[in-house]
Amino acid sequence: MRNLSLIVHNLQPENKETPIQFIESDILGPKLFYRRNHFSFPTLTFSNYWLPVNGYVDTPRIFSMQEILKLPARTIKVVLECAGNKRGFFEPKVFGEQWEKGAMSHGYWKGVSLRSFLELVGIKEDSKEVIVEGYDYGKRTDTDRVYSFTRSVPLEKALHPDSIIAYEYNNQPIPFFHGYPLRLIVPNFYAMASVKWIKQITVIDSIYKGPFQSIDYVYYPNKNNDEGAFPVTAMNVNSTIQKPLDREILNTGTHTIKGIAWTGQGSISKVEISTDNGQNWRLANIRNSGPGDYGWFPWSYEWTVNVKGEYTIMAKATDSTNRTQPASPFWNRKGYGYNAYDKITIKVE
Amino acid sequence: MRNLSLIVHNLQPENKETPIQFIESDILGPKLFYRRNHFSFPTLTFSNYWLPVNGYVDTPRIFSMQEILKLPARTIKVVLECAGNKRGFFEPKVFGEQWEKGAMSHGYWKGVSLRSFLELVGIKEDSKEVIVEGYDYGKRTDTDRVYSFTRSVPLEKALHPDSIIAYEYNNQPIPFFHGYPLRLIVPNFYAMASVKWIKQITVIDSIYKGPFQSIDYVYYPNKNNDEGAFPVTAMNVNSTIQKPLDREILNTGTHTIKGIAWTGQGSISKVEISTDNGQNWRLANIRNSGPGDYGWFPWSYEWTVNVKGEYTIMAKATDSTNRTQPASPFWNRKGYGYNAYDKITIKVE
Repeated sequence: MRNLSLIVHNLQPENKETPIQFIESDILGPKLFYRRNHFSFPTLTFSNYWLPVNGYVDTPRIFSMQEILKLPARTIKVVLECAGNKRGFFEPKVFGEQWEKGAMSHGYWKGVSLRSFLELVGIKEDSKEVIVEGYDYGKRTDTDRVYSFTRSVPLEKALHPDSIIAYEYNNQPIPFFHGYPLRLIVPNFYAMASVKWIKQITVIDSIYKGPFQSIDYVYYPNKNNDEGAFPVTAMNVNSTIQKPLDREILNTGTHTIKGIAWTGQGSISKVEISTDNGQNWRLANIRNSGPGDYGWFPWSYEWTVNVKGEYTIMAKATDSTNRTQPASPFWNRKGYGYNAYDKITIKVE
Repeated sequence: MRNLSLIVHNLQPENKETPIQFIESDILGPKLFYRRNHFSFPTLTFSNYWLPVNGYVDTPRIFSMQEILKLPARTIKVVLECAGNKRGFFEPKVFGEQWEKGAMSHGYWKGVSLRSFLELVGIKEDSKEVIVEGYDYGKRTDTDRVYSFTRSVPLEKALHPDSIIAYEYNNQPIPFFHGYPLRLIVPNFYAMASVKWIKQITVIDSIYKGPFQSIDYVYYPNKNNDEGAFPVTAMNVNSTIQKPLDREILNTGTHTIKGIAWTGQGSISKVEISTDNGQNWRLANIRNSGPGDYGWFPWSYEWTVNVKGEYTIMAKATDSTNRTQPASPFWNRKGYGYNAYDKITIKVE
């Protein structure tokens, strides 16, 4: 791992992905945790951090870090995946960061259920959403106004005990680049929901329409109009081949094909591998992630190849709710949710 | 630059490219110098380095570093470009490292003309080539034998005073990963000619047939046979757009399009930019690299755009020998010498 670093896509704002093919440990440390930003990093100058929880509630409150650290905590293993992960593979191509396969992370988050805060302030009946605002802000290319990065969580999701206000990542304070001191973690959802550098939490009785909800992070099925648009929420079932590498040249013999699979709904029930461009499929061995867990599932498959030539290798994951990766991705104008079969081509000589 | 690192393509052997779009300084330091290896890094255990120069010569000799450092030296500014740079853009795709645009470097090399060594040992009449062997070695996928990385230089090129046995890069000893203590530098040629970690130099009266010359670094125009094959030698005329980024979203207004151009023959005489997918071309401003110099040429072009929409931007360089980048690359089975117009697509909103 010492020999690896993030792959830069942009510096202003900073967008870098994980060299996912080379990740051997199951838990990703801060150094190789992808960075996805809409704006410059915020400058947090407070000497004491306070978390306001307000809006459509009985008793608005401001929580100190000391208070937060005393509340009952839980630790969950989570895949965070950028909604634009694998965007670079859409055909026709779309605009925006050309992420390959590494806009995702995997590790332990510890914090307090968002629900606990909502109970402490007492949300009013008819509350509909919980808005979480980050300290990061700036201009968008499509407007002249300044916006902060703010997203709402539907009430049902906000009340799920595993939606947490996290203060630790892998037993350490959250690294600055990933949301220090507090980050919302919404398991199962694409990572735009997991707002970094939380500034405040506001309960509302309406539907929030901020640009990171009403313009971005929306699936637009058509290139030239917004018909059929719907919001990006839970992660699609997905998998990535880590080894061999695409366009690698191998010898005849036995090779381990390995990778990871994950989903935003249930757990992974099987991963199938094809070494003949999708004609035949065989089950890979999966390392189970355990219940109550939102982690990825490492898998592997031993492949013996004696005939020289070119081979297209595919991986296809299925989850416990019977969602399966499709042969072709669902094309959408902003390039979210790519989850077609993962595919590489290698040559045996 | 502090925020940048190499982009990994492989770890065994180590192959990493420069994030070339983000390079702002003209000279590349060791940290962002691409790494291209055929084998593991050699373990150099000698406490004293000696350079044998032997073969078809009057007086074979072994030079100490002390002797070498006393010989007349020259410093040259050189582009080193991997013959496989931009390989990932060939269609149909080819096998091997999928380099994008950053398998190249730019800096000052200091050393002694190879010619000086050849004069000191006295090459015999009818000498044809000079073999330079590196300390790196290993197995290839296509054979079971162990080979060192060894290449020959045609006598005419070996006698050119700017073909040097270098011991410094940018006024420092050559970094280990780039050939310490001695590296052959052959300006104008693709960088496979610039053998790292020199073990010995041997003059021969025949044509060398090592695999890095007779199998690799050969243009094979056909997918299924070797007809029409010819060796990879001088760099093609080429250019790369550094800014804007491919698939970037911009505002209306004035933007600087900038990049670099280089050639393995003469110097760059012009760079033309099209912002309408190749219909119209305008001259970019070039910063001249100066005579006696094998460096790249930074260029820039101010572009004012007031109409929203998608734009395909192209760069096309021409050198002083009238070679121009082609619209389509010369496809070859191993994917060398890609030099089609550089091309990006952006959106203005």
